[in-house]
Amino acid sequence: MNTFTYINNTFVPAAAAALQVSDLALQRGYGIFDFFKTLEGRPVFLEEHLDRFCTSAAQMRLPLQKSREELKGIIRELLQRNHLPASGIRLTLTGGYSPDGYSITAPNLVITQQPLRLPAADAFEQGLRLLSYPHRRQLPEVKSLDYLMAIWLQPHIREHQADDVLYRQHGLVTECPRANFFIVTGDDTVMTPARDTLKGIIRNKVLQLARKRYKTEEGDVTLAAAQKAKEAFITSTTRHILPVLALDGRPVGEGRPGPVTTALSKALEELVTAHIRG
Amino acid sequence: MNTFTYINNTFVPAAAAALQVSDLALQRGYGIFDFFKTLEGRPVFLEEHLDRFCTSAAQMRLPLQKSREELKGIIRELLQRNHLPASGIRLTLTGGYSPDGYSITAPNLVITQQPLRLPAADAFEQGLRLLSYPHRRQLPEVKSLDYLMAIWLQPHIREHQADDVLYRQHGLVTECPRANFFIVTGDDTVMTPARDTLKGIIRNKVLQLARKRYKTEEGDVTLAAAQKAKEAFITSTTRHILPVLALDGRPVGEGRPGPVTTALSKALEELVTAHIRG
Repeated sequence: MNTFTYINNTFVPAAAAALQVSDLALQRGYGIFDFFKTLEGRPVFLEEHLDRFCTSAAQMRLPLQKSREELKGIIRELLQRNHLPASGIRLTLTGGYSPDGYSITAPNLVITQQPLRLPAADAFEQGLRLLSYPHRRQLPEVKSLDYLMAIWLQPHIREHQADDVLYRQHGLVTECPRANFFIVTGDDTVMTPARDTLKGIIRNKVLQLARKRYKTEEGDVTLAAAQKAKEAFITSTTRHILPVLALDGRPVGEGRPGPVTTALSKALEELVTAHIRG
Repeated sequence: MNTFTYINNTFVPAAAAALQVSDLALQRGYGIFDFFKTLEGRPVFLEEHLDRFCTSAAQMRLPLQKSREELKGIIRELLQRNHLPASGIRLTLTGGYSPDGYSITAPNLVITQQPLRLPAADAFEQGLRLLSYPHRRQLPEVKSLDYLMAIWLQPHIREHQADDVLYRQHGLVTECPRANFFIVTGDDTVMTPARDTLKGIIRNKVLQLARKRYKTEEGDVTLAAAQKAKEAFITSTTRHILPVLALDGRPVGEGRPGPVTTALSKALEELVTAHIRG
């Protein structure tokens, strides 16, 4: 794919987009990003993703040198140049070219667009098998570049015939590396962790949808509660809702997609469709 | 400074050394490094640094595609090209250009050389003021690129009129972001943490030197023990030994460099001089 990438005020072919090795992301893993989809050529929940991108930058003390309107203009131009109707757009902001390899300087801003990897047609029916693992991300409310544990755990996940990891700490489950986690309790309450978790855009939309139909609760979810949940699912920008059918090798609920998960998934698909066509 | 940088089998001017934005360090902060000095044109403790670099790579599941002898050859050529008698050499190994932005591929290897920033002449007398902070690095025995907290805490450190942070967890102190931590107890035992800490090359040399003169102990050091220590100091590749004169705003011992710290510092300087001239 010959797409263009935006990098520090210019558009260049993706393969030519490079940062000098003095960049603080390369030197110290220091930076933030955000990621959203386009469908039918239109960004999905752009305002919410820009909100979070700006918040992450501020929390990581990275001076974003573009206004929100400028960011939108760059994204518009990227869409026009690349002509990709279904895509993933990633905004990355790093600590900049640091003479001492340690201090934040003028951040480097990179915006890439790639064709969207669609989930397999049977992804929903297949669901996910999660493996809990003791970990808490650093500054968990910030979408930082820190995925050290997530990537390091890949062989561990495969060895346990799981699809992804679910972080836990002190008996509470929090999030997957790239997704939020929900359970449906015995009395059909839809619950999701509130602490030590990145507040995903789809997470928040699903909570809004769930409030119309079910009791909902944002709060602590114990591993024990997750293990005896009637249903569980993850939410993510790329995957929307996927059922969690097993946790730590044991089935969740009846081990197949449940009615609440299915209903919320349908409602979310309708919301996204209405959003991009609205 | 127009130095050369080694990057993936070529030597290029430092400013031209760049990695594509698909690199896993830029995407996910995933990579390792090591850093050593040259003095009088000769690498200091090169074998030990290469040992650790190879160990870090293996622990982070990064397939280092150069043999130890090849790495030494590259470093030799870098020294010849750059003619910098006193320098810092950094080897960085990243997760590679990752098509999916998540999976480890053939790592990128970058070796930079820069003139050495020498500590101020009065650095030893000035000593350091440390501020303890609750944190444990991920995979603490690996020299990974993860310095998120270290960089994020810089304003916090300045606000507290401190020079650096000392990580602590569950009542135990472990390490500074770029240095190891030692205390000298009331009975002249030289102690340094063994768990949840990067085993610094200078740390290990200082332990060896200390064993000849004092009781030594590698083991848990509580914050309380650090606060009532007779002396405390840090060890690092760039700074060797520097006294810690204050911790969390209170003086350590008599608030000036103590005799054990001073004697070990002198012994270390002699060891380094003997090493490069030997």
